[in-house]
Amino acid sequence: MLRLALYQPDIPQNAGTMIRMAACLGIAVDIVEPAAFDVSDRHFRRSGMDYLDRAAVMRHDSFAAFDAWRKADHRRLILVETDGTRAHVDFAFAADDVLMVGRESAGVSPDVYAVADAVVQIPMRTGLRSLNVALAAAMVMGEALRQVDGFAGREEGGSAAEKTNDRIRS
Amino acid sequence: MLRLALYQPDIPQNAGTMIRMAACLGIAVDIVEPAAFDVSDRHFRRSGMDYLDRAAVMRHDSFAAFDAWRKADHRRLILVETDGTRAHVDFAFAADDVLMVGRESAGVSPDVYAVADAVVQIPMRTGLRSLNVALAAAMVMGEALRQVDGFAGREEGGSAAEKTNDRIRS
Repeated sequence: MLRLALYQPDIPQNAGTMIRMAACLGIAVDIVEPAAFDVSDRHFRRSGMDYLDRAAVMRHDSFAAFDAWRKADHRRLILVETDGTRAHVDFAFAADDVLMVGRESAGVSPDVYAVADAVVQIPMRTGLRSLNVALAAAMVMGEALRQVDGFAGREEGGSAAEKTNDRIRS
Repeated sequence: MLRLALYQPDIPQNAGTMIRMAACLGIAVDIVEPAAFDVSDRHFRRSGMDYLDRAAVMRHDSFAAFDAWRKADHRRLILVETDGTRAHVDFAFAADDVLMVGRESAGVSPDVYAVADAVVQIPMRTGLRSLNVALAAAMVMGEALRQVDGFAGREEGGSAAEKTNDRIRS
């Protein structure tokens, strides 16, 4: 299944809300250390609180350690960045991809670009900096899950034959 | 173009980050009053700061006023809620839909359900409460934009013919 990797997360609230999302979606989270906070941090626990014990979080001591693990697990690394070379909606995700977001303040370091299998971006208006990193993660992860039919519990709700395309006009 | 409506927003940081997203994506925002903060609020301005002057924000005095405006503008109201009747990825969005999210604390009131053209949800694991409202908005708006080919600036980056489906394996 898809995974979400947080590269040296610097804002506890963002990390907490992404871990909460991952728990809700049934996605595991990789945290690439050093993080600017500890999992016991008050702000961190507040944003992800009820969800921390339901989330699968793996911590990696460094990017090199993460990347060695990732390669041994035969997963692609898909970086989500504002300077990505293609739109996330035009990229074909695989069910075992690891989607990585960088620090809110500074993105990722060049060694991440060097080994990433692809760098995708959310198309934006020119002259505006970026989405909040947690919102960007939600948007790209949502698209990846859609492509691989990976939304948790969706199979319980209905089969493909029941999908509706009706347009309701008030 | 698609619009994002915030129903009586109660957390300034969430509203700010959604307005920032809307500015980046070229989407207008409707705020249904009463909001639990003022646009001049310190926390609010901090989260959306650089973006407030680039965002198109319309304020509506009440839900009734919002709904009258919305109907006069011939737009559907698509509610994003955890008890939605269909998955957002199975719903056919239109380019002029208004997507509405509720309060982080309490969602929306019954009168919103009564007039909404559809209620969509993000499929989640059972037993978990919900995504943060801003992340939910990002995920559903991303899917709606994808469907209507509405990502800002994407037409500059490449035509449909240039879309790639390559899968890179390291």
